[in-house]
Amino acid sequence: MTGPNLETIRAAHARIAPHIHRTPVMSSRALNAMAGARVFFKCENLQKTGSFKIRGAANAILSLSDEEARRGVATHSSGNHAAALAYAARLRDIPAWIVMPSNAPAAKVKAVEGYGGQITFCEPTLAARDAAAQEIIARTGAVLIHPYNDQRIIAGQATAAMELLQEVPDLDVILAPVSGGGLLSGTGICAKMMRANVRVIGGEPRNADDAARSLDAGAIQPLGSADTMADGLRASLCELTFAILRERVDQILLVSEEEIAEAMRHVWERMKIIAEPSAAVAAAPVLNKQIGAEGKHVGVILSGGNVDLAKLPFA
Amino acid sequence: MTGPNLETIRAAHARIAPHIHRTPVMSSRALNAMAGARVFFKCENLQKTGSFKIRGAANAILSLSDEEARRGVATHSSGNHAAALAYAARLRDIPAWIVMPSNAPAAKVKAVEGYGGQITFCEPTLAARDAAAQEIIARTGAVLIHPYNDQRIIAGQATAAMELLQEVPDLDVILAPVSGGGLLSGTGICAKMMRANVRVIGGEPRNADDAARSLDAGAIQPLGSADTMADGLRASLCELTFAILRERVDQILLVSEEEIAEAMRHVWERMKIIAEPSAAVAAAPVLNKQIGAEGKHVGVILSGGNVDLAKLPFA
Repeated sequence: MTGPNLETIRAAHARIAPHIHRTPVMSSRALNAMAGARVFFKCENLQKTGSFKIRGAANAILSLSDEEARRGVATHSSGNHAAALAYAARLRDIPAWIVMPSNAPAAKVKAVEGYGGQITFCEPTLAARDAAAQEIIARTGAVLIHPYNDQRIIAGQATAAMELLQEVPDLDVILAPVSGGGLLSGTGICAKMMRANVRVIGGEPRNADDAARSLDAGAIQPLGSADTMADGLRASLCELTFAILRERVDQILLVSEEEIAEAMRHVWERMKIIAEPSAAVAAAPVLNKQIGAEGKHVGVILSGGNVDLAKLPFA
Repeated sequence: MTGPNLETIRAAHARIAPHIHRTPVMSSRALNAMAGARVFFKCENLQKTGSFKIRGAANAILSLSDEEARRGVATHSSGNHAAALAYAARLRDIPAWIVMPSNAPAAKVKAVEGYGGQITFCEPTLAARDAAAQEIIARTGAVLIHPYNDQRIIAGQATAAMELLQEVPDLDVILAPVSGGGLLSGTGICAKMMRANVRVIGGEPRNADDAARSLDAGAIQPLGSADTMADGLRASLCELTFAILRERVDQILLVSEEEIAEAMRHVWERMKIIAEPSAAVAAAPVLNKQIGAEGKHVGVILSGGNVDLAKLPFA
């Protein structure tokens, strides 16, 4: 099997646990009724830096040798990984150079700045991101911490599912959003190893459906445009995450923009917590009864809560 | 001293505890930095029905004799007490007749309907509310459960501060919003009895400042208009709550509409939880460093999280 094993994930958890929140698992009677199932939300929106990304970023940075760490770290990210890496870099007091697309949400840019990250803006394409990151690495010697093409990152992200399954061991289904595939890879590995019969489902915006197409085709498909409010889900799979998803994920479900906004509204109104659109992508198929899990126990990784309050999809 | 004593409050807590959430106490490093203090938010926005009001309503309804309960209950409320009473009435399977002002937020009306409350709308004045409630009581024989002019309600609302002080015993200051004064009365009684030297502060909208004026004048002052986004804070003190506040509250601080919106934004952005404007009224003086508590331990009762997502004060 591809990717980190359970022992590696447990080691990652031990490494990062002192530096992150043990996020709560929340439920809502109203949302259970809507879903026709018992739904357990792992609230990574309440995680440090406002998303699960601190898990992978902290694991990667805390795994660096002193020599590597001295050089600092660099990455490209639409936001949450960027903020997480900047935050995690402070745990070792090392610099973090961050390439962000010019259309990254203001709140996410502000967060990276707040954590002391040094930002370079680039055009919102994967090619431009890569080029800008390479230029920085050549100039500074910084260690690239890719947002998902990295075993340490995947092991870190897997710890969210690990904590959820420790608290709710009898899950029948577990969902996470998919973009580059780091979170869903970690979730799939951890869930299938902790509970062999669990179904693992990825939620993906219909307007950025490359993971679904890639798994259907049996080969990585290009992302094309990604006109979705789920600004955290505009990356595409790499060979590593593609291989893991093929082994560990049962299904990808596509979600329309209207369904994303509606799921967000339900989570906000009923649970009184702020989930970002990317997080709602994993909740939507559950609340819409798309997953065929009537009466079952369903886990949802609510991946993050970083939104621009001035640009909400409610009217 | 006026109002319920600590024993009565403990009994109320034992009575309602099986039916409510033990809400979390949350903190945020960013908000601590903003406040220059350690701030502990008692998250009643995450309470059943979305506000602390279920505490008093459940205590009142569970205290009724079987004969009283059979007649059902009635009240008037701009929203949160109404939803709480409708919810609590279901605990005993009795009817709840609810008078709501015609300008109550849609989300709060929907909640009351969802819990099976039978709504009568009236003009948004205290006189019209009273008249409509009296008419229903005359017609149905229902027991009036006033939103705050009731010892059982005050004892119930006090349990939020009790739980907060059980978890954080060394608070120097505790704040709650004030409207009719039920929550602030309960908070003041409980806090002063559990910790003699704690300062008790009420937050009140500048645009609905009758509690501050009443305490200054030494006599209840009329509310006049109440042009505030804090829709939960448009009631005015009664003799009971006025007497308790005089004994138990050190200070009322007034908050502008801009300050309410700003405090809401900070809580939403940093804690990723939804606090309604009325709840932000108690947070604002802390985040604005108005309370003179640098370096101290400060408790804030985040009273509720029921907002119309289509009408948010962010732009």
